[in-house]
Amino acid sequence: MSTKWCRFQKDGKISYGRIDGESVIAVDGSPWEASADTSTRHPLSSVKLLVPLVPRTFYCVGLNYPEHLIASAKHRGVEPVFPKRPDVNFRSNNALCAHEDPIIKPKDAGELFQYEGELVVVIGKQGRHIPREKALEYVFGWSIGNDVSERDWQRGDRTNWRAKNSDTFNPMGPWIVSGVDYRSMTTLVRLNGKEVARFPTANMINDVETYIAEVSKYCTLQAGDMIWMGTDGDPVNMKPGDVCEVEITGIGILRNKVVAEA
Amino acid sequence: MSTKWCRFQKDGKISYGRIDGESVIAVDGSPWEASADTSTRHPLSSVKLLVPLVPRTFYCVGLNYPEHLIASAKHRGVEPVFPKRPDVNFRSNNALCAHEDPIIKPKDAGELFQYEGELVVVIGKQGRHIPREKALEYVFGWSIGNDVSERDWQRGDRTNWRAKNSDTFNPMGPWIVSGVDYRSMTTLVRLNGKEVARFPTANMINDVETYIAEVSKYCTLQAGDMIWMGTDGDPVNMKPGDVCEVEITGIGILRNKVVAEA
Repeated sequence: MSTKWCRFQKDGKISYGRIDGESVIAVDGSPWEASADTSTRHPLSSVKLLVPLVPRTFYCVGLNYPEHLIASAKHRGVEPVFPKRPDVNFRSNNALCAHEDPIIKPKDAGELFQYEGELVVVIGKQGRHIPREKALEYVFGWSIGNDVSERDWQRGDRTNWRAKNSDTFNPMGPWIVSGVDYRSMTTLVRLNGKEVARFPTANMINDVETYIAEVSKYCTLQAGDMIWMGTDGDPVNMKPGDVCEVEITGIGILRNKVVAEA
Repeated sequence: MSTKWCRFQKDGKISYGRIDGESVIAVDGSPWEASADTSTRHPLSSVKLLVPLVPRTFYCVGLNYPEHLIASAKHRGVEPVFPKRPDVNFRSNNALCAHEDPIIKPKDAGELFQYEGELVVVIGKQGRHIPREKALEYVFGWSIGNDVSERDWQRGDRTNWRAKNSDTFNPMGPWIVSGVDYRSMTTLVRLNGKEVARFPTANMINDVETYIAEVSKYCTLQAGDMIWMGTDGDPVNMKPGDVCEVEITGIGILRNKVVAEA
């Protein structure tokens, strides 16, 4: 049975919650530890949903879907090279923002300002040297990320720091869903209501199980860590005023409006 | 006046502390927020020093000293290229370990397993668009990091993930010192007691003020975030059994022994 878990603010208080129909039940503890329902219940529409978690380590995966890899190479004028290994990378917590929060386009960002709809894997328990066949036992649940990218910075800087980690460049949410199968999901992106991307979520070059096994050969995965799994397709540009929705079937819809930096 | 701040464990309890001579005074709150001495005092020798902080975002700087940049290029058989911009990168919290904790060399790591002695900048208050001339007002204090690196992975992988972020690859400590001037410090590295590196800590290509100003153009710096500032020189290899000490004058000595993965 699937369960939706969120983090929310109500009357100045921040809490984890479990979504029950159109209500949120506040829970004690965090969802991936022992949590228990409290007697506090709010209408879902009355709370501010926050980023569902702020991880200790924020892992991400690049070039993990075939069409995106081929399109990226074409834009750079190079031959596509499929990765030899499941190398992971990192994003930064300052870049996280919630469902319905604005994506703020920096003043000096260029036209190639793009979404990337991504599956988010939320780790549920600590592990090191996790065997591939047990990898999904270490997953608490699944969420949606938008790995906003400024392509000129991505191509010109030595790292992806501002290209992919400027404030608000990592919208995530609206919640985390446990008890679902990522292999049956479809990822869709809509820009101002028009579908601009659609791909099978599991159509990855290296799948979730492979990444969990490989990363945990060197790095202890902790409950509350997360891995963003990359995107497919050839994104188009977003401009201030645009509304970007990333939907993953079985999880929900993450919606954010692009706003120009003041 | 300089003050030494630490994080420690005693009788199963974790606390921040202020070091007073040979004693640790437990403090309420974190050092970079309002903290207050408690009445609890322990002999420094009786507590386990922990990593002095686990940041929300762990920034790091690469190729920021001239000799290291030139030596790195030589090892790769390419011409040295001085960075055009102060691009930053990220490290991952799983890699942190404390003073006197073992650096665990993974089973499949090669011979080119090396230290990098680095100044650590601990941010003291939240800021965005911080002017260069006010940058040091946002620094709480200074610590010492050892950015342990596996060079074959660094050269062969798509990212530095396991080359620089495997468990225990980022020893940090022994404490954070506030109220000192980084421009007057010297960084030294000793391997089994023999000096293998010595450089003026401030001999950076882009200095601390430049990085704080540049990073905060795009990323909100938070109290408790940190930036590792890179290293100078041409490191030599470490093998299991070796003891590596990184000293920065005015801060202290960070000591870790290399141990083979079981």
